[in-house]
Amino acid sequence: MNRLTGAHALWTALAAEGVDTCFANPGTTELDLVRALEPLDGIRCVVGLQENICTGAADGYGRMLGRPAATLLHLGPGFANGIANLHNARRAHTPIVNVIGDHTSWHLPYDAPLTSDIESLARPVSGWVRRIGGVQECAQAGAEAVRESLAQGGQGATLIFPADFQAAALPDAVAGVPASTPSPAPSRPAEEGAPDGYDPALALERLRTVGRVVFLLGGGGEHSGLGARAQRAAARLCGQLGASAYAETFPARSERGQGLPAFDRLPYFPEPARAVLDAADLVVLAGALPPITYFGYAGHPSALVPAERLLVLAAPGHAVAERLEQLADALGAPAYEAPAAEMPAMPEGELTPARIAAVLARELPERAIVSVEGGTCGYPFYAASAAARPHTTLTNTGGAIGQGLPVALGAAIACPDRPVVGLLSDGSTQYTVQALWSLAHEQLDVVVLIAANHQYAILRNELRRDGGVLGARAEALTALDHPRIDWVGLAQSYGVPAARVSTAQALAGELRRAFGRKGPALIEMAL
Amino acid sequence: MNRLTGAHALWTALAAEGVDTCFANPGTTELDLVRALEPLDGIRCVVGLQENICTGAADGYGRMLGRPAATLLHLGPGFANGIANLHNARRAHTPIVNVIGDHTSWHLPYDAPLTSDIESLARPVSGWVRRIGGVQECAQAGAEAVRESLAQGGQGATLIFPADFQAAALPDAVAGVPASTPSPAPSRPAEEGAPDGYDPALALERLRTVGRVVFLLGGGGEHSGLGARAQRAAARLCGQLGASAYAETFPARSERGQGLPAFDRLPYFPEPARAVLDAADLVVLAGALPPITYFGYAGHPSALVPAERLLVLAAPGHAVAERLEQLADALGAPAYEAPAAEMPAMPEGELTPARIAAVLARELPERAIVSVEGGTCGYPFYAASAAARPHTTLTNTGGAIGQGLPVALGAAIACPDRPVVGLLSDGSTQYTVQALWSLAHEQLDVVVLIAANHQYAILRNELRRDGGVLGARAEALTALDHPRIDWVGLAQSYGVPAARVSTAQALAGELRRAFGRKGPALIEMAL
Repeated sequence: MNRLTGAHALWTALAAEGVDTCFANPGTTELDLVRALEPLDGIRCVVGLQENICTGAADGYGRMLGRPAATLLHLGPGFANGIANLHNARRAHTPIVNVIGDHTSWHLPYDAPLTSDIESLARPVSGWVRRIGGVQECAQAGAEAVRESLAQGGQGATLIFPADFQAAALPDAVAGVPASTPSPAPSRPAEEGAPDGYDPALALERLRTVGRVVFLLGGGGEHSGLGARAQRAAARLCGQLGASAYAETFPARSERGQGLPAFDRLPYFPEPARAVLDAADLVVLAGALPPITYFGYAGHPSALVPAERLLVLAAPGHAVAERLEQLADALGAPAYEAPAAEMPAMPEGELTPARIAAVLARELPERAIVSVEGGTCGYPFYAASAAARPHTTLTNTGGAIGQGLPVALGAAIACPDRPVVGLLSDGSTQYTVQALWSLAHEQLDVVVLIAANHQYAILRNELRRDGGVLGARAEALTALDHPRIDWVGLAQSYGVPAARVSTAQALAGELRRAFGRKGPALIEMAL
Repeated sequence: MNRLTGAHALWTALAAEGVDTCFANPGTTELDLVRALEPLDGIRCVVGLQENICTGAADGYGRMLGRPAATLLHLGPGFANGIANLHNARRAHTPIVNVIGDHTSWHLPYDAPLTSDIESLARPVSGWVRRIGGVQECAQAGAEAVRESLAQGGQGATLIFPADFQAAALPDAVAGVPASTPSPAPSRPAEEGAPDGYDPALALERLRTVGRVVFLLGGGGEHSGLGARAQRAAARLCGQLGASAYAETFPARSERGQGLPAFDRLPYFPEPARAVLDAADLVVLAGALPPITYFGYAGHPSALVPAERLLVLAAPGHAVAERLEQLADALGAPAYEAPAAEMPAMPEGELTPARIAAVLARELPERAIVSVEGGTCGYPFYAASAAARPHTTLTNTGGAIGQGLPVALGAAIACPDRPVVGLLSDGSTQYTVQALWSLAHEQLDVVVLIAANHQYAILRNELRRDGGVLGARAEALTALDHPRIDWVGLAQSYGVPAARVSTAQALAGELRRAFGRKGPALIEMAL
């Protein structure tokens, strides 16, 4: 490579801003970006067989490291395949830099087969969208994209990069030696706590004078409401005030396990969520949004807590640990004492969600990352995991299913020294099942647990709410049997060793085996 | 069901307009639409495990029948998963009615996790988008959606349907008995030929006086430039004028095989395409768009033929057969005589794309539908298939890969009496591989052929153009081995019987076996 191009300039700028990973599914309009990667050892490329795997992996990566990975996607349709997981990433406030190749600029007016309105597709999942208008803009656009991805507490920053500007030679003035090693990554500015008008004296006064208090802790980085520090401070406050605390229902990231308080998640359905919140005279938002129902349910208000009963300690993405500690100190709360963590007893017999949760809690290695998706095991595991070894949990923040497996992939790329678990349901995992190949290709230490009930159970639960009856066609539309998917065969065909278990004892044995060796594994848990 | 709702009104209106099939992946905001299906036997629902399978299947269905299937998709993210194949459908002028459930209208302002800008996502792939604003609108909106899907020669018509209006009781005035059988479907109006200013005398004069003529035939319905009638008329014109004719590069649908002329497709890359077109004094567009390069290639104009050398006989989606026949008659062309169709010899030995093409051409049953995706076998098969038994070919019109298998699924639903073949490449099929489950679930007579070269070959071809070298990272980014996907295991895990072949003889044997029995089959063709 003796000629530097716009594509070089972009990668070099991204690397200089700390981007070291790209989840890629390129096509013909990204080939100069592919060519320009040759000398750039500092940017690792991970191929996904479908774009939603790339975007979901970038979400998992960004949640763990607080800085963006890039995605490399092919025009509007390729980008569109990745929108669902970018939607989840948006709700998680994850920094991501999307690089979308587009047609050569002079070819666009001809409305070629792959031409589409990329901006219209990108905006709903991007806090910032920019179309590169010439080779001289590439470096600056790359730097700006990284900065923008870190703004607003973390967001999608999308660059549309016409192929001719990728290929164009850089003018000498801007040509430089490509960086082979990324610079130290910037921290997410929001972690440092932007000024937001928070008044500690006012907050203290309100806590002192109000009746029953519920803290709602929002997840994210280490300093979020569900980092270890904030949880400990919240526990001190709960003890001092006789208050209770809940994690938001779907935290982007939360620390969990031994040494931390056993806070529950705010329930998903409106009735149990209201049972928690209606009883509170004050709901304190510690990095969480004001709680609303997930869907609109007749008979329930969307806003679960009226404004006058809310106190905003910090918005999502803002550092909240320090504020909770200050309040605890000011109220004279004693130092944090970790609760006695009682590991669930080793269950026996046929698998149930509760038994799966207990076995996983017992077997989970220290510092594991657990990517949770699916209603079947998510809640039981959260309950059981309070006594597990310290670990990190990532959940589905935006409700677009097919998120759990790609996020596990991205987390494993981000944190190669930590074991990763995907605790997933069969229905949702099908949306991005091709991620299994990337796990095998990269030989990542990811243990995939599939709760195989062969149905869209969440939909059946919703259909049966309020005494509803499951009609024959509704049952057919929510059934995943006839035939049942053979998850063991499926995983093996992608190169992932797999086993099927139907008892708690067998699950424990397979988990130990999987955690004891390198590379991915899948366990189908028959329910 | 003793209460009729907005959801009933929509389905009833769709059925009344001829919609008898819905490719569905519903979620919580579509549950009243699911409930309302119970009494509607006339609408068949086919579940896809990911939304791009539903939209691709609707494309295949609409291409074969010229009338829309419905899709049922879950809010913005679920719809987004289906955009890529809606993009292909847009380029194919396929009528489709998308029904997207949205949040209950009064819940939208709260920006719940699954809220997104659905309109912004829908517009790039929809000729028409409407948000239902109340229960009283449902019936009219349904009827309008079907009509709009048939407008402009066929397009996507997208209805956004808030959950509360689905669930709301119909006012008595509009409540009716739900139709249990769809009405006869309207034909696509464009097939009848809208007035477009075509002047037969002028066209005739130009053909009589110009030098070398190339006809470019555009695909679509029976009366398109690649229907049997138009092809025969074009052959008469070619004989009379010493002209030649080509199919457009990626026809939505074309008739092919014994009894029809052996027209080639216009080549994909600009050099061979220009070799065809530069030699022509006049290019006659018979249902095809003016030819442009697929991507912008330096040194080649996007528009392959300047306007002064173009004659528009009919725009895409317009009936063109009659006009070609009139011209042939006016020029005194003799009646059509089918060329002597020479079946390719039975090849022997290791599989190559040419041998695969020859074997399939020999074994293809009469009236088969062949959904072709992927560069490896698509062109060789088109060349070999001129002598095959009469069949219909569907290709990837929009370049968004992951189209071939869902289109095969939809074609099989549309035409249950015709055998369907998917002639596919391994890279592209991975994008929507979950369609295999739907083939097994519905026990469709679809034979899936996977050309397994374990690489993104099209990208390597593009990278090597103009003497380019495949760098190490470019090779890694286009490799699909390490591990190689086991297509036999993959198909079997979805309930599709499968076999692997590496010789022409073995392929012929497996094809005969697959065509000889009911239900789907997959054959991995090792290359």
